Amino acid sequence: MKDTKVSSIGERALISILSEIFKAPDGKEKGQEGILIGAGSDDCAVLDLKGEDCLVVTTDMLHRTTDFPEEMTAWQMGWMSAAVNLSDVAAMGAEPIGLIMAIGMPSDTEINFVEALAKGMQACAEFCGTAIIGGDLDTHAELTITGTALGKVKKSQLLLRRGARPGDLVCVTGYTGSAGAALEALQLKKPVSETVLKALFEPIPRIKEARQMAESGAVTSMIDTSDGLAMSLYDLARQSHVGFRIWEDSLPILKEVREFASNPDKLRELALYTGGDFELLFTIDPQEMKKVQNICNLTVIGECTMYEAGIVLESPECKLTTIAQRGYQQLKAETIDGSS
Amino acid sequence: MKDTKVSSIGERALISILSEIFKAPDGKEKGQEGILIGAGSDDCAVLDLKGEDCLVVTTDMLHRTTDFPEEMTAWQMGWMSAAVNLSDVAAMGAEPIGLIMAIGMPSDTEINFVEALAKGMQACAEFCGTAIIGGDLDTHAELTITGTALGKVKKSQLLLRRGARPGDLVCVTGYTGSAGAALEALQLKKPVSETVLKALFEPIPRIKEARQMAESGAVTSMIDTSDGLAMSLYDLARQSHVGFRIWEDSLPILKEVREFASNPDKLRELALYTGGDFELLFTIDPQEMKKVQNICNLTVIGECTMYEAGIVLESPECKLTTIAQRGYQQLKAETIDGSS
Repeated sequence: MKDTKVSSIGERALISILSEIFKAPDGKEKGQEGILIGAGSDDCAVLDLKGEDCLVVTTDMLHRTTDFPEEMTAWQMGWMSAAVNLSDVAAMGAEPIGLIMAIGMPSDTEINFVEALAKGMQACAEFCGTAIIGGDLDTHAELTITGTALGKVKKSQLLLRRGARPGDLVCVTGYTGSAGAALEALQLKKPVSETVLKALFEPIPRIKEARQMAESGAVTSMIDTSDGLAMSLYDLARQSHVGFRIWEDSLPILKEVREFASNPDKLRELALYTGGDFELLFTIDPQEMKKVQNICNLTVIGECTMYEAGIVLESPECKLTTIAQRGYQQLKAETIDGSS
Repeated sequence: MKDTKVSSIGERALISILSEIFKAPDGKEKGQEGILIGAGSDDCAVLDLKGEDCLVVTTDMLHRTTDFPEEMTAWQMGWMSAAVNLSDVAAMGAEPIGLIMAIGMPSDTEINFVEALAKGMQACAEFCGTAIIGGDLDTHAELTITGTALGKVKKSQLLLRRGARPGDLVCVTGYTGSAGAALEALQLKKPVSETVLKALFEPIPRIKEARQMAESGAVTSMIDTSDGLAMSLYDLARQSHVGFRIWEDSLPILKEVREFASNPDKLRELALYTGGDFELLFTIDPQEMKKVQNICNLTVIGECTMYEAGIVLESPECKLTTIAQRGYQQLKAETIDGSS
């Protein structure tokens, strides 16, 4: 790999290379015994706490220019920095037990700004029933925030990306494509409602919903949709070794996002290939569907198939097209207009 | 605090402001019950795991221009990113159970470089008996690495900054001023030995020593010396409400660091006010001294006094001078030559 730049291989390929380096030779080295799920294969790493519980942990680095649109307030940047991590904790079915926030900022940052940032973090932590328990402050040319969230869940209730079986139903919480539509509206200077803007600026970690789902025992696999629905489907498919048939008509999309998209191609683009929604994507044993349908605003969007059937979108006319493996991916020039 | 910049108040004042925001009104809000030690008051935050153990967690953000001297290799940057966090875990008397590394890097970074970085992280984690269990990859203008380390320790063995009592002996592991001397030598383009350079580039987290010390039951308080001996003494003093009398003659300083310092003032400057050594500073019940003296290369450097006596240096001629509260502090223009 001499002289090859990271931009030429993309985030997921680089994660694979690093996961090999971080893997002990036989997987049973000292220091590895407690690791149930290691680097790179789920929303969180999972550590065995020896009793009935396990610990989940996740981290996310955000930067002002790449992750925070200009229109965001400091409070919203704080909220988002906490939310992206708490959403990963939710996706494991876990209850958050603490957040650690490292903040690098220019030395001429106003204290007012930092206070608003901290209040946004605190508000999101409180909303999720947890607290900021530590952190690090640092000078840095560009505002950079790395959050780390910890969660706890009974081993019997842990939800992984692996576990979906052919025949399971595929569900999502909330709406898809809202954050993507908001981002595009901002970029094109088009008007956009407060509801759609909030989907992008103040994503809600689905902690409560995920906990109830984990307790129901009906969910077979789960992931969040931070990188877009298509990418999340591919991640679930790889870990569960299943395929998916997604019913285009069933995708939950806000009315104004439908209006914003000028044509069906554009709407599919927003719904499948844009990130930032932070909803939960999960699969359910159809016999257990009753147990979860009253938990929250969830929509059945398709079914699990055999791995060999791939990941396809079924149009209202029952035409099948392959869903592409693209979306929000770091380190690679992939944008919301789909050029990759 | 309108229009005030963070540079005008410094890291520790800003931590105080943020700690207030992150503190729930009565300290017993939902989400706060499990927190034994919260943001800002020790090397790690501490969470109650309900059984006999507690979980410690710490994070540190490092940047290429401010934290990695030009002469460092990618492997050493990786080692250091892991080491700074593992040193904080050591300072709690805990055993590390996992490291999470978030890496932001320019998109034209060579894969070779990232592999060397990862191998350095892995080597340090392995040295400390743990593993890299997760992380995040991101594009960013400047190489930025945020590590988060997790550790576990029996509640009865947890070592805090608070706990030192007047009459206790003050000890450090290893040598003081080595990393500071190395940094200054590099800046002044003076020759410097591999041993001194390694103190700066490949600091050793004192995990094994700290674990043995925690098990001995003789240690009353502990901190690492990452921000310099003086700053660490002030942090211990504040949390334990004690003073310190440090014996100048007893400070463990490498022979070549003594030679590098051209005069006694300079030597005191290096030994007390430069950071980067990542040794342990701790206090011991004098009656229990026997239990720890064979554990590792430790030096008794002074004694705990009453808080009111302050933090003083006793010269060989028994002259007392106050040790200043300065050292390595982020967000403020403090440098190793001591101008603050």
